[in-house]
Amino acid sequence: MGIQRETLRRMATTFRVRSVLAKQCLAECLGTLIHTMLSCGAMAQYTLSRGEQREFLTLTFTLGFAVALGILVTGKVSGAHLNPAVTFALCLLACEPWIKFPFFFVAQTLGAFFGSGIMFGLYHNAIMHYGNNQLTIIGPNSTAAIFTTYPSEDLTVVNGFLDHVIGTAALIFCILTIADPLKRPVATGLEAFTIGFVVLIVGLSMGFNSKYCLNPARDIGPRLFSAMAGWGYDVFSTGNYWFWVPVLSPIVGAMFGVLVYQFMVGLQVETKSNCTSHSEETVKLTSVKAKGRR
Amino acid sequence: MGIQRETLRRMATTFRVRSVLAKQCLAECLGTLIHTMLSCGAMAQYTLSRGEQREFLTLTFTLGFAVALGILVTGKVSGAHLNPAVTFALCLLACEPWIKFPFFFVAQTLGAFFGSGIMFGLYHNAIMHYGNNQLTIIGPNSTAAIFTTYPSEDLTVVNGFLDHVIGTAALIFCILTIADPLKRPVATGLEAFTIGFVVLIVGLSMGFNSKYCLNPARDIGPRLFSAMAGWGYDVFSTGNYWFWVPVLSPIVGAMFGVLVYQFMVGLQVETKSNCTSHSEETVKLTSVKAKGRR
Amino acid sequence: MGIQRETLRRMATTFRVRSVLAKQCLAECLGTLIHTMLSCGAMAQYTLSRGEQREFLTLTFTLGFAVALGILVTGKVSGAHLNPAVTFALCLLACEPWIKFPFFFVAQTLGAFFGSGIMFGLYHNAIMHYGNNQLTIIGPNSTAAIFTTYPSEDLTVVNGFLDHVIGTAALIFCILTIADPLKRPVATGLEAFTIGFVVLIVGLSMGFNSKYCLNPARDIGPRLFSAMAGWGYDVFSTGNYWFWVPVLSPIVGAMFGVLVYQFMVGLQVETKSNCTSHSEETVKLTSVKAKGRR
Amino acid sequence: MGIQRETLRRMATTFRVRSVLAKQCLAECLGTLIHTMLSCGAMAQYTLSRGEQREFLTLTFTLGFAVALGILVTGKVSGAHLNPAVTFALCLLACEPWIKFPFFFVAQTLGAFFGSGIMFGLYHNAIMHYGNNQLTIIGPNSTAAIFTTYPSEDLTVVNGFLDHVIGTAALIFCILTIADPLKRPVATGLEAFTIGFVVLIVGLSMGFNSKYCLNPARDIGPRLFSAMAGWGYDVFSTGNYWFWVPVLSPIVGAMFGVLVYQFMVGLQVETKSNCTSHSEETVKLTSVKAKGRR
Repeated sequence: MGIQRETLRRMATTFRVRSVLAKQCLAECLGTLIHTMLSCGAMAQYTLSRGEQREFLTLTFTLGFAVALGILVTGKVSGAHLNPAVTFALCLLACEPWIKFPFFFVAQTLGAFFGSGIMFGLYHNAIMHYGNNQLTIIGPNSTAAIFTTYPSEDLTVVNGFLDHVIGTAALIFCILTIADPLKRPVATGLEAFTIGFVVLIVGLSMGFNSKYCLNPARDIGPRLFSAMAGWGYDVFSTGNYWFWVPVLSPIVGAMFGVLVYQFMVGLQVETKSNCTSHSEETVKLTSVKAKGRR
Repeated sequence: MGIQRETLRRMATTFRVRSVLAKQCLAECLGTLIHTMLSCGAMAQYTLSRGEQREFLTLTFTLGFAVALGILVTGKVSGAHLNPAVTFALCLLACEPWIKFPFFFVAQTLGAFFGSGIMFGLYHNAIMHYGNNQLTIIGPNSTAAIFTTYPSEDLTVVNGFLDHVIGTAALIFCILTIADPLKRPVATGLEAFTIGFVVLIVGLSMGFNSKYCLNPARDIGPRLFSAMAGWGYDVFSTGNYWFWVPVLSPIVGAMFGVLVYQFMVGLQVETKSNCTSHSEETVKLTSVKAKGRR
Repeated sequence: MGIQRETLRRMATTFRVRSVLAKQCLAECLGTLIHTMLSCGAMAQYTLSRGEQREFLTLTFTLGFAVALGILVTGKVSGAHLNPAVTFALCLLACEPWIKFPFFFVAQTLGAFFGSGIMFGLYHNAIMHYGNNQLTIIGPNSTAAIFTTYPSEDLTVVNGFLDHVIGTAALIFCILTIADPLKRPVATGLEAFTIGFVVLIVGLSMGFNSKYCLNPARDIGPRLFSAMAGWGYDVFSTGNYWFWVPVLSPIVGAMFGVLVYQFMVGLQVETKSNCTSHSEETVKLTSVKAKGRR
Repeated sequence: MGIQRETLRRMATTFRVRSVLAKQCLAECLGTLIHTMLSCGAMAQYTLSRGEQREFLTLTFTLGFAVALGILVTGKVSGAHLNPAVTFALCLLACEPWIKFPFFFVAQTLGAFFGSGIMFGLYHNAIMHYGNNQLTIIGPNSTAAIFTTYPSEDLTVVNGFLDHVIGTAALIFCILTIADPLKRPVATGLEAFTIGFVVLIVGLSMGFNSKYCLNPARDIGPRLFSAMAGWGYDVFSTGNYWFWVPVLSPIVGAMFGVLVYQFMVGLQVETKSNCTSHSEETVKLTSVKAKGRR
C-alpha cells in the first residue's frame, strides 16, 4: 500500500490545476458532461424503445435528477451552474464577476458536446438499428431529438420563445430562492436534489411544447455534436432555424427570473448584498488553499 | 461591479414593502401563483397530450410538488398557507389572527388567477389547436378542466361535498401534525416536501371523484380567469352550479381536520397553547427587523 | 383571541387522556386509520378507474407512503407500529412489554376498520356505479379487493403463506435495522419516509402474488368492515378460507425477521440490550409528564 | 422480561463473530442478498405480469432503491460495497487493502446466489405457471432474465462491453464523489438513498441495451443459481457466451471511473490521502470494540 499511496500523492502534485478559474471551468465542463450524458441517455431510451418505455414521467424524472447528480458532483468547486442562464442570472445579481460568463459558457458547451458524444457511442448500435442505418432529423425514424430539442409541429416561434422565457424565469426564480444563503428553506446537503425537483416539476408542467431544455449550452453543444456525427448541418435549419430560440430565450428568461426574484423576494428581506453566494465563498477558500499549498 | 451593486442597493431601499401584512400578502400571492401555474401546466399536459402523457401519477406528482415549491419559495415570509382552508384552520386554532383570513384569501385568489393566466399564455397555441380554435367546457375537446375542477359524471353533489370535506380534513390534519413546532416529526428543511407528499398521497388516494383541489382560492381564481379568457360564465353553472362546492367544502373540511387534530393530538401532548406557530414568530421577527432598518 | 385560547385550554384539561397505554392505543388506532384510509383509497382508484389509472407503481407508491404518513402522525406518541407484526417483533426483542400486544392489536384493527369505512363513504357512488349497484367479491365487477387482499388464482396456500412470511421477514428486518437507535443509518426525521420506502420496495418486489398486505390488522379490519357493509360473510370463505393466511403468516414472518436481525446484526454490534427503543423512552417520558400535570 | 433479556444477552456472547473481516464479509453477504432478492423480485413482477405491470420506471426504481436498502442495512459494518467493482475501485484508490477484494467478491457472490434463491421460492408457482412448467432461457415464455442479464438481440459484444464500461465508470465516479468524506455534498444519513438515486438514474439513462447490472457478483451469483435451479448450464453459453461481459466489464469500468475521479476531482482538492474512508474507520473502531469486549 505504501508505494500505491506514494504514487497517488505524486500524481496529485503533478496534475493539480492551480488556477481557480481553470479549476471551476473544468468542474462546469464535467458537471454539464454528466448531466448531458444522462439526459441524452434518457431521451435515447424514450425514443428507441418505440413506446414500450415511452413514459413522460420517466423521461422528466431522469432529466431532473441528471441535473441533481451534475450538481452533487461539482457543487463545491464551481457552484455547479451547469447552465449559462444560471451564470447569467448570478452575474446580473452581482454574485459572480461578468468575466466568468464567457468562460463558463464555453466550458458548459464543451461538456454538453462530449456528454452527448459518449451517449452516441453507448447507443450506437441501437440508434443505427432504429433508423435502418440512417440518421434523420424528421420523420418516424428520426433520432436527432435524442440529442437536442426540436419544436412540436403546431408551435409558432413566438409561442416557443415565450414558452422558454416563462420556463427559464420560473426555473431561475426557484433556484435563486432555494440557493438563497440567508433564508435556507432547504436542509443543507439537499440543495442539489431540490433543484433537481424544480427541473422535474417545471418539465412536467411546461415541457409539452418543445420538450424543454432551458439551457443554451445543453442545447447547442449536442446540436453541434449531432451535426458532426452524421445528422448534418440541417439540425440548425430544421423548424425555421429554431436552433437560436433555445439559446437566446433562456437568457431573456433569466433576466425576468432575476427581476421577479429581486422585487418579490430579494429586496424584501436583506439589507446587505443578497449574495454571499456559496460559489463566491468557494472561490476565496480555494484560492487561499491554493496559495497555502504552494 | 461597484456600480451594479450600488444600483441593487438603491432599488432595495426604494421598493421594499414596509408593512408586514402587505409583505405576507405579497408572499401568499406569489406562492399561490407559482403553485397554480405549475399545476395548471400539469393539467394542460395531461389534457392536451391526448393519452400519450396521460398518467395519473405524473399529474398528482406535479400537483403535490408544485405545492412544495410554492411553500419553499414563500415559507419564511408568510408561513406559506397558499390555501384559505389552511389559513382558516390556523385561525380556528388561534395561531393566526382572524384579520388575516380575508386578506390572505384575496391574495391567494389573485395569485391563482394570474398563475393560470401565465399558463394560458404558455399553452395558447396548443389549447387552440386541441379545441379546433374553440374553448369549450364539456365534450371531447373541452379544455376548461385544465384550469379548474369539474365533477365526474356519476358524482352527486352530496358525495362530492363529502369527498372534499374528507379530503381537506385529512390534508389539514396531516399539515397540522407535520408543522407542529413541538413534536417536529420531520427533519428541519423538509417540511415543504413533506406537505407536498401529503398532497400527493391524498390526491392518489382520494382524487378519483373530482380530480381534487381542496383549495378554494386555487379553484375560484382560475375559474374566474377561464370565464374571462373565453370559456364564458358557464364555468360557474356547469355541473349544477358545482362551483360553490370546492369553495365551501374545504372550509368545512378544515373545521373537521382541526377538530380531529385537537382531540386526538393537540390536547394530548401540550400544556401551553399548541401554536407558537412559525409564521407568527416570523411576523414578530420581521416587524422587529423592519423597525431596525428604518 | 383571548376567549378563543381560553376555550382551547379548558378543552385540553377536560378531554386529555391520562393513561399512557390508552393514549398509545388511541395513537395506534388513529395511525392505522389514516394508513388504511389512504391505502383503501389507492386500491379504489386502481380498481374503479378500469385501466386508465391502473398503474402498479402508483398503487404501491401510495401504499408505501400511506404508511409513512401514519408513522409521521403518531410516531412520537406510541412508536407508530401500526402493524401487529411490528408490535410482536418488538415484544420478542424485549423492547416492548408483552401486555401491549393484545391492546395494540385491537386498537390497530379498530383503526383499520374505521379507515376503510371512511373510504367506503367517499367512494360510495363510484363503487355502486362500477358494480351496477351490486357488491361482489369475485368476477369482473368485484369491488371487495378495494378493502382487503384475495390471492391471485394460481397461488397455492403454501406458496401464499411462504410469500407472506418472506415478505414480512424482510420488512421487519429492514424496520429493525433502520429504527436501530445505536447505528442510526438514516438521518433523524426521515425514519418515517425510509420505512415508507421499505414498504414500497418490498411491495414492488414481492407484491405480485397477493397484492401484499403483511399486516394482520390492516387485513382483518377492512375484511370485517366489507362483510358488514354489504359484501357478506363470503369475504372470509373466498379462496379456500384464505382470510387466516394474511393474519397468521405475518406473525410467523416477524419471528423469522427478528431471528435474522438478531444473528446477523443485533448480536454483532451492541453489548447492552439492543433496544433503548424510542417508543419505550416515550412511555417513560409521557408517564413522567402525566404525573407532573396532575 | 428479565429471563427474555438474559437469554438474548447470552445468545449475544455465544454467537458474536469476533473477526472483523468475517463480520464484514457477513455484512457484504447479507447486504447483497437483500439487494439481489429485491431486484430479482422486481424483475419477476416485470416479467410475469405480461405487460400489465411492465413499466421500466417501476423496474429501475426498485433496482435503485434495493441497492439503497442493502446499503442502509450494512453500511456501518463493512462500508456496504455490495459490488466487487466498488471494492476494486476502493482498493485501487488505496482506501481498502487488496486482501479484501477476493473475500468480499466471494461473500457478495454468495449473497447474490442465496438472494435469488429466496425469490425463486417466493415466485415458484408463478414462474411455473408462466412458463407452462418449463424453465427456458430464450423465447416468449423464458424466465431466466428474472435472475440475471442477457443482451438484447441487436447488441454486439463490443457495444455491450462498452455499454457496461461507461455505465460502471459513471456509477463509480458518482459513488466516489458522493461518499467523499472531505467534501460531503450530501446530508449525513442520506448517502444510501443518494447512491440508490445514482443507480436509478444511470439505469434510466443507460439501461436500454442490456438491462444493466454493473455488478459482477449480482450477475454471476444468480446466473449460477439459475443454472442449478433448472435452467441448465446454457445460461452461460446464451448470447455467444455473454456471461463473462457483465463480470469483467464492470472491473474495467471501475478503473476508468477511478481514473476520471482522480484526475478531475480527487487530485484537485485534497492534499492528504483522499480517503479516510468511513469503512476503514469502521474497521478500526470495530477492532477496538472487539478487543474491549473480550
